[in-house]
Amino acid sequence: MSQPIKIGIVGVGKIVRDQHLPALAKDQDYRLVAAASRHGKVDDIPNFPTIEAMLDAVAELEAVSLCMPPQFRYDAARTALTAKKHVFLEKPPGATVSEVEDLKTLAAHNGVSLFASWHSRYAPAVEAARAFLSSARIRSAAINWKEDVRRWHPNQEWIWAPGGFGVFDPGINALSIATHILPAMFITSAVLDFPENRASPVAARVTFRTSNGLPVTMDLDWLQTGPQSWDILADTDKGAMVLSGGGSKLAIDGKLIHEEPEAEYPMLYKRFAEIVRAGVSDVDLAPLQHVADAFMLGKRNVVEAFFD
Amino acid sequence: MSQPIKIGIVGVGKIVRDQHLPALAKDQDYRLVAAASRHGKVDDIPNFPTIEAMLDAVAELEAVSLCMPPQFRYDAARTALTAKKHVFLEKPPGATVSEVEDLKTLAAHNGVSLFASWHSRYAPAVEAARAFLSSARIRSAAINWKEDVRRWHPNQEWIWAPGGFGVFDPGINALSIATHILPAMFITSAVLDFPENRASPVAARVTFRTSNGLPVTMDLDWLQTGPQSWDILADTDKGAMVLSGGGSKLAIDGKLIHEEPEAEYPMLYKRFAEIVRAGVSDVDLAPLQHVADAFMLGKRNVVEAFFD
Repeated sequence: MSQPIKIGIVGVGKIVRDQHLPALAKDQDYRLVAAASRHGKVDDIPNFPTIEAMLDAVAELEAVSLCMPPQFRYDAARTALTAKKHVFLEKPPGATVSEVEDLKTLAAHNGVSLFASWHSRYAPAVEAARAFLSSARIRSAAINWKEDVRRWHPNQEWIWAPGGFGVFDPGINALSIATHILPAMFITSAVLDFPENRASPVAARVTFRTSNGLPVTMDLDWLQTGPQSWDILADTDKGAMVLSGGGSKLAIDGKLIHEEPEAEYPMLYKRFAEIVRAGVSDVDLAPLQHVADAFMLGKRNVVEAFFD
Repeated sequence: MSQPIKIGIVGVGKIVRDQHLPALAKDQDYRLVAAASRHGKVDDIPNFPTIEAMLDAVAELEAVSLCMPPQFRYDAARTALTAKKHVFLEKPPGATVSEVEDLKTLAAHNGVSLFASWHSRYAPAVEAARAFLSSARIRSAAINWKEDVRRWHPNQEWIWAPGGFGVFDPGINALSIATHILPAMFITSAVLDFPENRASPVAARVTFRTSNGLPVTMDLDWLQTGPQSWDILADTDKGAMVLSGGGSKLAIDGKLIHEEPEAEYPMLYKRFAEIVRAGVSDVDLAPLQHVADAFMLGKRNVVEAFFD
């Protein structure tokens, strides 16, 4: 086995504590050697206030995981890539498509790997759904992603700021799965609901069409209390597919055919190690492109103010 | 000289009468053989209500120019490419970036040429500005595009509809020049002003940064009466560049160094004939990508209602 990759983590918030640290702790491909964050800290390793301070002090670093809000990711990524460190980008990979294109160019120029991570693509039943759909004739598909923002993103002001994506923050997870399992598609119409006191939408209804003319709908709602829905449905000649639980369970005609424990972040870090060892990048911008297209094409509704 | 390309024009409105018909009339590379439009007509050739009717009736057609509003361009382009006709897309090339990517794939698959035309790139002083900037060290740049929508787009409802771009309809002309003469750049912030009764912005202030950290600003305003501004300014070590008149005049430190008569559409059709003869496509999506990024990242202001 190769030497572990010496990695630093930047932006120590909820997702780092919930997902990144547990995944890294169990993975022999990595050794976590430092962290940088304005507020958060990681126990038992050196902590720094900024990525610049971390890179200056910890020469052995080979890679960094960037987990701050997307509005601040570009500068950190540029700093790390310029210092010839491999870079893992939390999702979404940036605040604009063009800035991530720029990072791709910089990574290639500096001979390091860039990874635009889409954790939901590594949900346990996604590959089974992809295999099923590629063997079937699809008639239509529907993406229903409805959750309670107060439960999953309590008091996260950045998510409501311009560039914070609003309900497209979970919606981009749905898109990262849909663009992996469905044929190429593009948006034909969209309606985005903006709370009157917020810069980002709380709900959206989007219609897509695939290259071969199939209709795909996407319904995003951030005010869903009670049961939460993270489902992709497809009507096919081989039955009605339901990929539910954010990609964790696959059923055909009501019969559960695939379910296993969730391991998205361990799979993401496995993939990152693979591309670092292989000397390549993995940057698929299709999910982010659809979000940008939805904002450009979408009709804006103003709805009731939102308070946490 | 080769045989003229037998071309049909679709969506007969103001831009077709003002620009496409005069350019085609003078160009021996083309023979205009048919037109399709819901409302407009072209004299002395067969006219049809739809592109489908035109393609069915006029078998000799080799190419089509698609000039309807962007919201309706994809379906027509798909129909034409599927019938193995070369396609000239007026700007903007589509309502989303993803749909134009889909058209590129289809054109390649059918062995025909697709042209995403950006007429302002062919303004007379643009190449001189590009040459100047590539020989100078740029410190900063500013795009100022301020015009009177009531004068240039009177009662054009589609331009205010979702997907109609609003002030980014002229703004994308500025971007088509800027992305051609300046280094690669991306948006870092944007503010978009939406009239309270309209779905598209009437003004926008956008800041970009180039890969090497230079600041670029863009100021779009659709309520400018009196003198109109379509200018790109750059502060450089070789002097202050002003490319004015939508790319028609170039001055350095106040001295006019390039001015010649405007011939954008004749140049566009020359380029289209070139790519058709060469069997290639020419589809640069950078200007449209920046618009999508501005809508995604931008802060929305609601401003006074707009009435024509």
